Amino acid sequence: MSAIRPARGFCRAEFETRFLRAQREMSALGLDALLVTAPANFRYFTGFAMQFWESPTRPWFLILPASGAPIAVVPEIGAGELAKTWIEDIRAWPAPVPADDGTSLLTAALNSVPHKHGRIGAELGREMSLRMPVAQLREVESALRFHSIADGSPCLWSLRMIKTEAEIAHIHHICQVASRAYGRIPELINAGDTELEACLKMQMALLREGADQVPFLPGISGPGGVSQIVCGPGERRLASGDMFFMDTGAVFDGYFCDFDRVWSVGPPDNDLARAYALVWQATEAGIDVARPGATTDDLFAAMARVLGTGDSNVGRFGHGLGLQLTEPPSHMPGDGTVIAENMVLTIEPGFEYAPGKMIVHEENVVIRADGAELLTTRAPAEIPVI
Amino acid sequence: MSAIRPARGFCRAEFETRFLRAQREMSALGLDALLVTAPANFRYFTGFAMQFWESPTRPWFLILPASGAPIAVVPEIGAGELAKTWIEDIRAWPAPVPADDGTSLLTAALNSVPHKHGRIGAELGREMSLRMPVAQLREVESALRFHSIADGSPCLWSLRMIKTEAEIAHIHHICQVASRAYGRIPELINAGDTELEACLKMQMALLREGADQVPFLPGISGPGGVSQIVCGPGERRLASGDMFFMDTGAVFDGYFCDFDRVWSVGPPDNDLARAYALVWQATEAGIDVARPGATTDDLFAAMARVLGTGDSNVGRFGHGLGLQLTEPPSHMPGDGTVIAENMVLTIEPGFEYAPGKMIVHEENVVIRADGAELLTTRAPAEIPVI
Repeated sequence: MSAIRPARGFCRAEFETRFLRAQREMSALGLDALLVTAPANFRYFTGFAMQFWESPTRPWFLILPASGAPIAVVPEIGAGELAKTWIEDIRAWPAPVPADDGTSLLTAALNSVPHKHGRIGAELGREMSLRMPVAQLREVESALRFHSIADGSPCLWSLRMIKTEAEIAHIHHICQVASRAYGRIPELINAGDTELEACLKMQMALLREGADQVPFLPGISGPGGVSQIVCGPGERRLASGDMFFMDTGAVFDGYFCDFDRVWSVGPPDNDLARAYALVWQATEAGIDVARPGATTDDLFAAMARVLGTGDSNVGRFGHGLGLQLTEPPSHMPGDGTVIAENMVLTIEPGFEYAPGKMIVHEENVVIRADGAELLTTRAPAEIPVI
Repeated sequence: MSAIRPARGFCRAEFETRFLRAQREMSALGLDALLVTAPANFRYFTGFAMQFWESPTRPWFLILPASGAPIAVVPEIGAGELAKTWIEDIRAWPAPVPADDGTSLLTAALNSVPHKHGRIGAELGREMSLRMPVAQLREVESALRFHSIADGSPCLWSLRMIKTEAEIAHIHHICQVASRAYGRIPELINAGDTELEACLKMQMALLREGADQVPFLPGISGPGGVSQIVCGPGERRLASGDMFFMDTGAVFDGYFCDFDRVWSVGPPDNDLARAYALVWQATEAGIDVARPGATTDDLFAAMARVLGTGDSNVGRFGHGLGLQLTEPPSHMPGDGTVIAENMVLTIEPGFEYAPGKMIVHEENVVIRADGAELLTTRAPAEIPVI
């Protein structure tokens, strides 16, 4: 893949294709439309890039009918900019209007959708949160004349799980940005830095290398290992004999990377060195198995076999990746997703190698016809030293 | 207020007080408990600082009963760290478990809450999104034996609108961080920079000055003015005669600042200079009126009087601020919130000073017994020049 930074945004044909795939999927699932409120879904279909989602005050709505053109129902404050995207039917109200914050406009638009199946799919299910007050959804539901609200998340995920080449180029770019930033850690970070200082240096390195934002950057240290991987950084200072763990969800033009790295501060003890080598080998096994036709259960099993454990500590050995840090599928027993071309996945085995000491390793790959292709620069096979 | 960086986190008494206030409020509103799922609410009551919210895969639940102790129902991956907070009753499951992702644990805990009023308040209403699948909420609702789910947002907002001194110290700190970063803009940014480059420099300056993260940093430029304030930055290059607008929602230890600044690239034209001076005066008027006993309607009216307009372009002239970039109340006609001591508010008048040219000005204040106290360093009365 190219090392050149991809252009921001996507061409009109990209969005038309996404919408046509959505329409095909809706018909197959018996939905007359999708109702979209969440930032990632809204951006997926419109290309609308806006940081203003950070303000929870105003809801934004997008209706994707199974036949006909998309309809956006949005606050006036953003209608002019949305009109610059490929969306043409835009209806706006002067939000915030607590008494009717788009409810009647949205209801009218939904009532105008042709009713073949009588169901509109909303973001009600798996790994989705509705970005509108539930009380407002209930109001809308009770005012629908021809439809009920059903779970649209299977439809949304089946689309978003398979990436386009343009999406893959975006994710590849941010993975390379983060790989370069990780590469500079040994020269940037020293024993004596606090976790917070170390993560600040990493955040600056990510921005310098080309990240737009860094929404996720935990950094956790501990003598010979760490007991958890979700909370931090804190004020703890790195000291010789520590393991230092960093995970990075940086963003370019809306798309995430998600992969971690582990260092030893000074020479590692034998337990840590062995655990690192094993989890690196498990990652190799995962990358090897990740090809079209295998399932997420197979992926989990291949990694678990190397680690000699069926317990992942985090419940799974990786997941999908794209407009969100984590997306379906989950590499775990029972998930049963058949891996397909153009999925972007994390390969993320982990285990507890000593009581209270866990290690997780992670790479990002895209699935091609003949197997997994790395988007990240592969971590060294032996634990690197700070 | 002190210029020293406040310690991260809060003492146990702070959380006990927040919880006791919540219990009083619940009793007044006829709720037997609050069910909390959203990051800001979860953190408000527990102090749990975690970037892992960025992964939408796993729901997290906190039950605050009107009598008795809080109960957390959370993924195993975070239970150990949550146990380091003041929360003692922690029930965990090995998420993700798609077939029962905490549903039965949560239901059992809710069914154990004493039922006096028969209602549990959830994040269903104003400016709130539930961070769990709506389908799961419906499942939980149908399994409740003694309660229905009601809107808990009035209870949550009435608590969160009034800040503690420790919260105010946090917000003051991040406001000062951003004020220092803004102060360096004229030396950092030059004509010829793209909006993206300019915002990158601001983001780095914010991190150097002490911000943890910068979730919100739009930067927008245009000849003599800008037509919107929500989308950007983009690839446009700053040129002489431009107005350049930046807004900043940076975070320290979970708390936001939210204020913008406006520059002229080279000498401003008369329209822009006049508009800037007027919106600066409107901000003065807003700060002057923002005192205990006045209403958000009064605030709007005072600023509109200076601007000579009843139309704010963004629907309101400011809002609350804290763990989120924007919180209730809204300074607008009909909001009717009585301003009270220890509210933290943005004062944010704006208007269209020429067709397609809008300007917004913003400061952050805390309400004291005798009036508003600035948390930000006041913008210059005349438009600054890059």
